[in-house]
Amino acid sequence: MKGFRWVDKGVCFPHGFKAAGIHSGIKADGRKDLALLVADTLCSAAGVFTTNRVKAAPVLVTSKKLAKGRAKAVIVNSGNANACTGERGILDAKEMAALTASSIGASEDEVLVCSTGVIGEPLPMEKIASGISRIGGYLVEDDLSFAEAIMTTDSFPKRKAVEVEADGFSFRIGGCAKGAGMIHPNMATMLAFITTDVEVPQKRLSLFLKEAVDESFNRITVDGDRSTNDTVLMLSKTGVSLPEEHYELFLCALKELCRELALMIVRDGEGATKCVRVVVRGAKTPDDAKRACEKIATSLLFKTALFGEDPNWGRVMGALGASGAYFNPDEVDIYFGDVKLVSGGLFTGRKEEERAKEVMANSSFDVVVDLKAGAYEYYMWTTDLTYDYVRINAEYRS
Amino acid sequence: MKGFRWVDKGVCFPHGFKAAGIHSGIKADGRKDLALLVADTLCSAAGVFTTNRVKAAPVLVTSKKLAKGRAKAVIVNSGNANACTGERGILDAKEMAALTASSIGASEDEVLVCSTGVIGEPLPMEKIASGISRIGGYLVEDDLSFAEAIMTTDSFPKRKAVEVEADGFSFRIGGCAKGAGMIHPNMATMLAFITTDVEVPQKRLSLFLKEAVDESFNRITVDGDRSTNDTVLMLSKTGVSLPEEHYELFLCALKELCRELALMIVRDGEGATKCVRVVVRGAKTPDDAKRACEKIATSLLFKTALFGEDPNWGRVMGALGASGAYFNPDEVDIYFGDVKLVSGGLFTGRKEEERAKEVMANSSFDVVVDLKAGAYEYYMWTTDLTYDYVRINAEYRS
Repeated sequence: MKGFRWVDKGVCFPHGFKAAGIHSGIKADGRKDLALLVADTLCSAAGVFTTNRVKAAPVLVTSKKLAKGRAKAVIVNSGNANACTGERGILDAKEMAALTASSIGASEDEVLVCSTGVIGEPLPMEKIASGISRIGGYLVEDDLSFAEAIMTTDSFPKRKAVEVEADGFSFRIGGCAKGAGMIHPNMATMLAFITTDVEVPQKRLSLFLKEAVDESFNRITVDGDRSTNDTVLMLSKTGVSLPEEHYELFLCALKELCRELALMIVRDGEGATKCVRVVVRGAKTPDDAKRACEKIATSLLFKTALFGEDPNWGRVMGALGASGAYFNPDEVDIYFGDVKLVSGGLFTGRKEEERAKEVMANSSFDVVVDLKAGAYEYYMWTTDLTYDYVRINAEYRS
Repeated sequence: MKGFRWVDKGVCFPHGFKAAGIHSGIKADGRKDLALLVADTLCSAAGVFTTNRVKAAPVLVTSKKLAKGRAKAVIVNSGNANACTGERGILDAKEMAALTASSIGASEDEVLVCSTGVIGEPLPMEKIASGISRIGGYLVEDDLSFAEAIMTTDSFPKRKAVEVEADGFSFRIGGCAKGAGMIHPNMATMLAFITTDVEVPQKRLSLFLKEAVDESFNRITVDGDRSTNDTVLMLSKTGVSLPEEHYELFLCALKELCRELALMIVRDGEGATKCVRVVVRGAKTPDDAKRACEKIATSLLFKTALFGEDPNWGRVMGALGASGAYFNPDEVDIYFGDVKLVSGGLFTGRKEEERAKEVMANSSFDVVVDLKAGAYEYYMWTTDLTYDYVRINAEYRS
């Protein structure tokens, strides 16, 4: 017997993890801005980082630490990205880890560090040091404060966890995330932290995490188009080993968890009112499928049409044609939800258009394109582009 | 002695051209929607067309006609793109040309045809045929009605002309354009018509037009990212030949004219309040320069920051890093106007930030990035992303 039990908890749902989130003074408005996650034993650790050429100091510092594949704690600040801060930024990130290590009695190497917020300002290290000296006192077996303290423009804390049972063996995986961009081509930072109370060998853990991220966070941020700070970290407690026969099940649960967290980010998209999955199938090559899908999902005209609930398939055709993907325009089918709006490149009529409008009135639906050129498929999630998106991003630093 | 005299006229400023623009009934609101340009002799003709894989019927029909390199007239309708209309669309485009040819006494091959407007609806051919039978009566040596009749979401007609004198020889070039997109990645259609009263051999004319388009319309629409209908057509009257020693001067005037028309399109960008030139210099390769420039100029975060008049250089750095261009983040300089806001990858300070805000209060300025990685440069124009952009595009078909 196998079973998944989903709960609205996060990194502390797996046994042996404590977390805390407090206000240290980085954010001017009194919201929480410093978060700490601590495991009660040393963990296997894996990470996936931004591919942006401009990497924030904590990304450089943490990815280097992860070479050892072990970690015990993660310290995170929000409100300041510690990006484009030069040598001082590197020293500050190392200092954050060192201060945390001494306060929880770990080695400096075992503490990972992340930052998110405004780019180009040095960290207010006095406030952070003072916060780190206090935060240990707030550690509890609950992650709500942690999830709140990593937020920037997020409108709600994001966490999800699952307990998996298989043939008498059980384990838990939990995650907390932040991010509220569209996100690509937005470059709003995405951070995610995942824990599990079962031991997965480090190399395997890295592979699993990469695969899960590719099918979740990367379907909203899109290849290579990341912020300076994007990071996904995973800690796997040592002690009880995951039996090899459950590897597949573990990966499946991890993928679903990452997808849930990624969808929370999309739903919290800046100013977004809709979460739409764009599917391109029938592509000649995997690359064609991805290119065509990304072009539609990131088209401003398509995204504003989503906001206007206008089944403007002409904009889908325009984006397809500009994507570089191979197809014959006279063969393409386009669906909004279950409504076939374009058949063999031609509009199917007013009645279908009215039905497509009804589909678009929902807050979540699929737009599916069949290129009829081959067997490859790709999907990703996108949001509508709204007045609020413009307001939030025009005023971000004001 | 050489001299350029610029005037606010268009395709009829060169001698020997007449134009007309009327309402034929395609647009529901009574605005002009049918335009005709006729030369009094056969002309050399050249064209540059959209590279979108989905090409509108008039693009297919006109590019085929241009193989002969000769034309006498252009018939244009707005309000309907005749795109994604299948075989019927092709027949309709041919019919538009044939009807025009018989009404002005030309051969069918000598009439070019363009359309712009909504995608996927068949042309209302009865209205168009009736319009074509009447439009000849409105031909005058003035192009304002023509420029108005090709408009869609444009808020003003776009035309510019120049008279060039060199060592006693003189010639005129004039142009009319439409388009009010951002435009890439917007795919709003751009049409431009250019005339000259001096004869340039057809192959040379094609080369000149391509070069001028590359440095003007393509700097706002960006390579390959075109609508289904984008077209630039040029007619050069036969009779008086352009002396070879003036080829360079002619090309220079043509480039400036195209740039003026392209900038009118940017300034009329949908909902735009600012026209900003993004310059990337010091790139390692020409491709790096272009990629980095495009990434910044099309970044939603950058464009909303322009609207908010927020000198958010972190978003420029983020876009640069995601562009794939080679550079060392610790060496980059960024300028807003003449204000150096980033030097060697680091923020130069609050005083400079205040000065950059003053620069951004202008409706037009440069944002310059020096990658310090090589000798290549690229520039393009972009606009800010505003509430009105969202409104216009969410409501376009409603």
